[in-house]
Amino acid sequence: MELQEKQTEISSLGEFGLIDRITSGITPVNASTLKGVGDDSAVVRYPDTDTLVSTDLLVEGVHFDLTYVPLKHLGYKAAVVNFSDIYAMNGTPRQITVGLAISSRFTVEHIEQLYAGIRLACEIYGVDLVGGDTTASRSGLVISITCIGDAKADKVVYRSGAKDTDLICVTGDLGAAYMGLQLLEREKRVSNGDKDFIPKFEGKEYLIERQLKPEARRDIIQKLAEAGIVPTSMMDISDGLSSELLHICKASDKGCRIYEERLPIDYQTAVMAEEINMNLATAALNGGEDYELLFTVPLHLHEQISKMDGVKVIGHITKPELGCALVTRDGNEMELKAQGFNHMSK
Amino acid sequence: MELQEKQTEISSLGEFGLIDRITSGITPVNASTLKGVGDDSAVVRYPDTDTLVSTDLLVEGVHFDLTYVPLKHLGYKAAVVNFSDIYAMNGTPRQITVGLAISSRFTVEHIEQLYAGIRLACEIYGVDLVGGDTTASRSGLVISITCIGDAKADKVVYRSGAKDTDLICVTGDLGAAYMGLQLLEREKRVSNGDKDFIPKFEGKEYLIERQLKPEARRDIIQKLAEAGIVPTSMMDISDGLSSELLHICKASDKGCRIYEERLPIDYQTAVMAEEINMNLATAALNGGEDYELLFTVPLHLHEQISKMDGVKVIGHITKPELGCALVTRDGNEMELKAQGFNHMSK
Repeated sequence: MELQEKQTEISSLGEFGLIDRITSGITPVNASTLKGVGDDSAVVRYPDTDTLVSTDLLVEGVHFDLTYVPLKHLGYKAAVVNFSDIYAMNGTPRQITVGLAISSRFTVEHIEQLYAGIRLACEIYGVDLVGGDTTASRSGLVISITCIGDAKADKVVYRSGAKDTDLICVTGDLGAAYMGLQLLEREKRVSNGDKDFIPKFEGKEYLIERQLKPEARRDIIQKLAEAGIVPTSMMDISDGLSSELLHICKASDKGCRIYEERLPIDYQTAVMAEEINMNLATAALNGGEDYELLFTVPLHLHEQISKMDGVKVIGHITKPELGCALVTRDGNEMELKAQGFNHMSK
Repeated sequence: MELQEKQTEISSLGEFGLIDRITSGITPVNASTLKGVGDDSAVVRYPDTDTLVSTDLLVEGVHFDLTYVPLKHLGYKAAVVNFSDIYAMNGTPRQITVGLAISSRFTVEHIEQLYAGIRLACEIYGVDLVGGDTTASRSGLVISITCIGDAKADKVVYRSGAKDTDLICVTGDLGAAYMGLQLLEREKRVSNGDKDFIPKFEGKEYLIERQLKPEARRDIIQKLAEAGIVPTSMMDISDGLSSELLHICKASDKGCRIYEERLPIDYQTAVMAEEINMNLATAALNGGEDYELLFTVPLHLHEQISKMDGVKVIGHITKPELGCALVTRDGNEMELKAQGFNHMSK
């Protein structure tokens, strides 16, 4: 955690003092936010739309390591990954609630840093912070964020709508956030706890940024809306492309073929994969935390979707009996497996 | 934690396998629940009402001790305390999302027990479990529940609406949950870790039940609605009467007088207070986790509200310059202070 000049013990403020401090000056920007922080519950109003609700839990030592993740970045990311879930339903995030469990090693300034990141994300994405719960923990930091959003009833996109012959599209590029994590962990090992150690990130800044400060693809949701395209199915890629694509195929009762040569991969990701001797397709398929969108559209939209900036067609949906496979550069088929970020597997 | 015959390692199922198992057979009961578990977000629809959102975080070692709290009771309580927040806005809870962080000492059966409690609470209160996040933790169990509910726009009750001369009412009785906790902790100390120890709870079953299996006051919300009464302010009592009353007075910019002789206290609470040599008023004022409702109504409703079963008038709201005080049996005034369950104070 970063050092700061003045440190205030949380116990000197107490729970309510801390909440007052970190939520001061919050002004709602969404018309749907009627009442935010400061009562038993927040009050929101969605008269003509469907309401979307998504929850994420981030646990210190499992999802983040404060030796190399600044608290402000952590707050930003914690908020953005929840916004991403709402965009992945073709909706717009409007409100979040933030639950924090904090051990005694954190000071008021630490929590302010964390909240600064959460509030920055809210500001950039136009989301209101409307409530939460702040409590003690015995060890470490736990962040629980619930995001509420809206979508026109006929525009909500589920995982289950993929049809045979639909095109499979992904946004941005894949595997960079995973490579950023490998890089951060390598430098942490090399530093060996030395506080004055200067990590070597030159030429790999993109990987670090993808890991520490991911963005949600609001821009793509807006472009799709402007183009009048409602995907047949959609998810965000948090656990790796393979895992997510298997979710869509399972929910839609379909199979798929994606093509190795079409996987969008950044140059820095490729360089890093070579350095750590890792297969590049594996990184793109199973590296988590990209927060890109994975979606399907009907085949007849091929020309239109291919021209859309930031979107790449990587394959197509098939009948279920064909299974889910990656077609490699040499034309072989490799069955897709969920080997993503599964914190609970051995 | 209770022993069970067959124990399954969570890692043998993985995150998605565990989620499939604990959410199987969930059928929505509310018309507002369009899509529950199984996508990036849940989808709910509230066309003509306001939406209420409340979040709570429960941390092992801070909020509960699994040496004497059965997991099923814990799940039930975790859900009910969130329902209570929605009732405290004069609303009806409709959906919850459940975030769980689980350390490796928990098995699938443990989590099923916890979920059995959550699902029982949902069934009894007519609430749909619509989503969540399940992840690993390094140590202990963290439960994060977000509850979504609805209320007619003109029926939502905030903390800030108390007026001078309004009557202050509480439901049920106070201090019993706190005494239940004292009793459980005393028996834990006496048992000294002996697995065959049989704790002595005779004649104090009510205290144990209030601590382990609290209920939310849906019945009172329904009675108030039937009587056509909309309180001017309302909260649920989770941190102790003093603390909550101070919240209402601060939010409403008012003072208050409550009367020691009018505090509703159960006989078992009084017996236990004497056994542990604790002032009974202190237990009623500062003992947390009662989950009773604290609300204010205009003075002219005195007769009507006094006749309502389960409701007691304990004092009245005053002008702010009079401060907040308890009038003791001997007629003295004692300033109210928030000495409740503040996990973050020293």
